[in-house]
Amino acid sequence: MSETQRIAPRTGVAFELPKGATLTVFDPEGSQVADLLAYAAADLREVISNGRTFDYEETLALTTGNRLWSNRSNPMLTIVADTVGRHDFLLTPCSEATFRHFYPDRPVHRGCFGNLAEALSPWGLAEDDIPTAFNLFMNVPIDGATGRIAVLPPISRPGDYIALKAEMDCVIGLTACSAYASNGGSFKPIAYRIA
Amino acid sequence: MSETQRIAPRTGVAFELPKGATLTVFDPEGSQVADLLAYAAADLREVISNGRTFDYEETLALTTGNRLWSNRSNPMLTIVADTVGRHDFLLTPCSEATFRHFYPDRPVHRGCFGNLAEALSPWGLAEDDIPTAFNLFMNVPIDGATGRIAVLPPISRPGDYIALKAEMDCVIGLTACSAYASNGGSFKPIAYRIA
Repeated sequence: MSETQRIAPRTGVAFELPKGATLTVFDPEGSQVADLLAYAAADLREVISNGRTFDYEETLALTTGNRLWSNRSNPMLTIVADTVGRHDFLLTPCSEATFRHFYPDRPVHRGCFGNLAEALSPWGLAEDDIPTAFNLFMNVPIDGATGRIAVLPPISRPGDYIALKAEMDCVIGLTACSAYASNGGSFKPIAYRIA
Repeated sequence: MSETQRIAPRTGVAFELPKGATLTVFDPEGSQVADLLAYAAADLREVISNGRTFDYEETLALTTGNRLWSNRSNPMLTIVADTVGRHDFLLTPCSEATFRHFYPDRPVHRGCFGNLAEALSPWGLAEDDIPTAFNLFMNVPIDGATGRIAVLPPISRPGDYIALKAEMDCVIGLTACSAYASNGGSFKPIAYRIA
């Protein structure tokens, strides 16, 4: 098992996760979001897809036992443990454009989108290769009657975690989220471990 | 205004839609789905994004007045008329893999995914370039409490339509859906007109 790694507030990392390995992502201080991307190491044009995942899992509420599917209809990651049970796969990583849109009076940040693009650049990936991310611990309630969504602070508490087992060799992008709203207004680290 | 074009059952088309033009898509017989994709004609790596759209529109229920956004945070299409008010932007186009998954005892079809890939091939686009589509008339109710989704027959009636105005020069992919469940089990045409 690897040592626990820390992702500093408002930054991101990328790393390879071999088939069979389990990635555990911790929310050390609670109420923080981590955006996760997965690409197939064998062909980086195969990537996680919220649409395929919703199709095959028949739910928007993904937790232990659910799988994250690729655009080529292959399972990439299986959620094998989850102490929170509330994540989001609807919304895209925060970016300079989303900062300007949602927080016009506050400092702009390149956000998870820019952090992911930089972290993934050694693999030749760039902004246009970033699909909708799986947003760990992100709390986006849905009003089923009206379709309205909201972004609320995560319900995760210090030490909560989610564990994902790789179903193929993956390249993973992972952030400690930079947006004001998604974590209740404070920027905190994320931690992860590979076993 | 162009003549009304017909998309035969279980087929798809692609065409250019210039900025300012309005595409009206009709459900001539009722209860049929049409998968729609939009790419920026100036750079085909800019494409509609369900995640960016949900972010900026703050709803999953897209209808008149809502815009469809690209992965680069630009508005691509504005819904300017809609006699149905029930569409889906969660699920990916049906494909050989989804036919095998959902209908293991019935004939496999390449589905909207294969139809879109062929129709878009003159622009150099292929299957890996197809994101989650905007599925016109598709009826996917969401249980907000549990996150469960279902695919029900569309509520569209014969002659219902949705109209989308192009906010940039677009390449559009459009199908008459091939799946068994999404249209209540019968395969029907779709019609469209450009004005």
